[in-house]
Amino acid sequence: MALLFKSSWDRADWWREELLQRIPDLDFRVWPDVGDEAAITYALVWKPKPGDLARYRNLKAIFSLGAGVDHLLADPTLPRVPVCRLVDRALTRGMTEHVLTHVLRFHRNLPGYERQQHAFEWKGLPIKLPEERIVCVMGLGELGGAAAKALAAHGFHTRGWSRTPKTLAGVESYAGNDALAAFLKGCEILVCLLPLTRETEGILSCQLFAHLPRGACLINAARGAHLVEEDLIPALDTGQLGGAALDVFRVEPLPRGHPYWTNPRILITPHVASVTDPRSSAELVAENIRRVDAGEAPLYVVDPRRGY
Amino acid sequence: MALLFKSSWDRADWWREELLQRIPDLDFRVWPDVGDEAAITYALVWKPKPGDLARYRNLKAIFSLGAGVDHLLADPTLPRVPVCRLVDRALTRGMTEHVLTHVLRFHRNLPGYERQQHAFEWKGLPIKLPEERIVCVMGLGELGGAAAKALAAHGFHTRGWSRTPKTLAGVESYAGNDALAAFLKGCEILVCLLPLTRETEGILSCQLFAHLPRGACLINAARGAHLVEEDLIPALDTGQLGGAALDVFRVEPLPRGHPYWTNPRILITPHVASVTDPRSSAELVAENIRRVDAGEAPLYVVDPRRGY
Repeated sequence: MALLFKSSWDRADWWREELLQRIPDLDFRVWPDVGDEAAITYALVWKPKPGDLARYRNLKAIFSLGAGVDHLLADPTLPRVPVCRLVDRALTRGMTEHVLTHVLRFHRNLPGYERQQHAFEWKGLPIKLPEERIVCVMGLGELGGAAAKALAAHGFHTRGWSRTPKTLAGVESYAGNDALAAFLKGCEILVCLLPLTRETEGILSCQLFAHLPRGACLINAARGAHLVEEDLIPALDTGQLGGAALDVFRVEPLPRGHPYWTNPRILITPHVASVTDPRSSAELVAENIRRVDAGEAPLYVVDPRRGY
Repeated sequence: MALLFKSSWDRADWWREELLQRIPDLDFRVWPDVGDEAAITYALVWKPKPGDLARYRNLKAIFSLGAGVDHLLADPTLPRVPVCRLVDRALTRGMTEHVLTHVLRFHRNLPGYERQQHAFEWKGLPIKLPEERIVCVMGLGELGGAAAKALAAHGFHTRGWSRTPKTLAGVESYAGNDALAAFLKGCEILVCLLPLTRETEGILSCQLFAHLPRGACLINAARGAHLVEEDLIPALDTGQLGGAALDVFRVEPLPRGHPYWTNPRILITPHVASVTDPRSSAELVAENIRRVDAGEAPLYVVDPRRGY
């Protein structure tokens, strides 16, 4: 029984230490030092190349190193074993903080005051109470649900949109495509925390933006592919969107010549909204290893048809 | 019995409507249409000129249109009647939101990411959990106390500094000048919400900045005169301070040629951190009029010797 670790983002040494504290006899192998491929029963990975995992014929489970699993499900050769999302308190807290920070930045119109400063302009801009501001969160999973609850707790008029209806304190639930237009109506700050699936790819498009009031702001902290990238700058140029805070992009790092870099209405963060912390998330991985070893079902298994 | 309203900032028509709803027979007069000066028993004012109020010989109380009263106490000819601060839920909420917004902006290093974007740089910057970040609030009155509690509730390691010790949930209390150095030690984000008094004028100086760790950030939402303005840019240039978010200035509007306008480490907001809203604050003014009419002491009377 061995676990293969492969990620060019997460630190193998930290994960090794945290997992061995919990499972002292774990055979922790870091790619490319795989050894006997037949001994690999668990894969703890972030963005393996398609086909990478097919060679491990005795895999019992695949653990994502992040909340998303689109990087795994896109691989048609992925072994047919349970694929588990990472659910981590630190990941959820970090994302909630990212969303609150960027919502407050737009709510208090800091981009507008920065523009005025460049023009030596001293002028108060319109302000609203948070309960007068409609903030909408697309996706009410672990991350979106926590973010929506935090926005509601701050006092924002908060709506959430998901495939099936959800009950979250202070959050108005909208479910399914039929409710999308009503969900977006009057929304001044739109937050995307959807899983990336066939249904949600490209959902942030000019068609969707047209349902928002003029000047609404977009926060995308889910996946770059949720956004039709070529639709964003026209929407900003016409004023249909007032600003965008993007943490994710179709190609990362964002290529040097990409027009987003120099657009004054776009704030770029380099996929840092939230990171997993092995200090807290190793517990779930260790628990899932124990469960699979004992013949039980692991926690947070994704549904490959649903995509999350 | 008449009330004189004088402000070049607040809207007389809104205040008239809100006060007359509560005291229908109130004689509400808006400067300069004062009429018989001897009939004026109450003054509801923001930044009257020194000497302005001395002519109203039958004044019974003076009500500030803001949380601060320094604009009144600086007038040596001010009639010796009770001077009342404005305490307003909307004012407190707005200030708390301003502080949370700017603390999160520094905590999540948005200025650093903006600089990287200008340089086409894709790089994660160091991040801390909020409990690993020491945030310090100077002044624990209505506004500072509420802001400190909100920062603590978000999870920040929060300290508060005031003249006398205070007990606030989750906030470490430091009191008096002897505790100032210990209060500042390790503080990465410093928030000033002090009242402006002889003791606090110029407190934000290079001597104070030297107690902070290198790269600390300053948020001043109290009064411009708390800051020794000429000390700020050298502190930013040497890196002793990493950034400043300033809402208040010695001269407002900030003069066109002032070096703060073009400093890339300073974010200027035009004294908009929080505004009074007559919908909520008229209640206190009406209550104080009732009390004084009935021969009782009004609420939130300031101590002229203390200055707040």
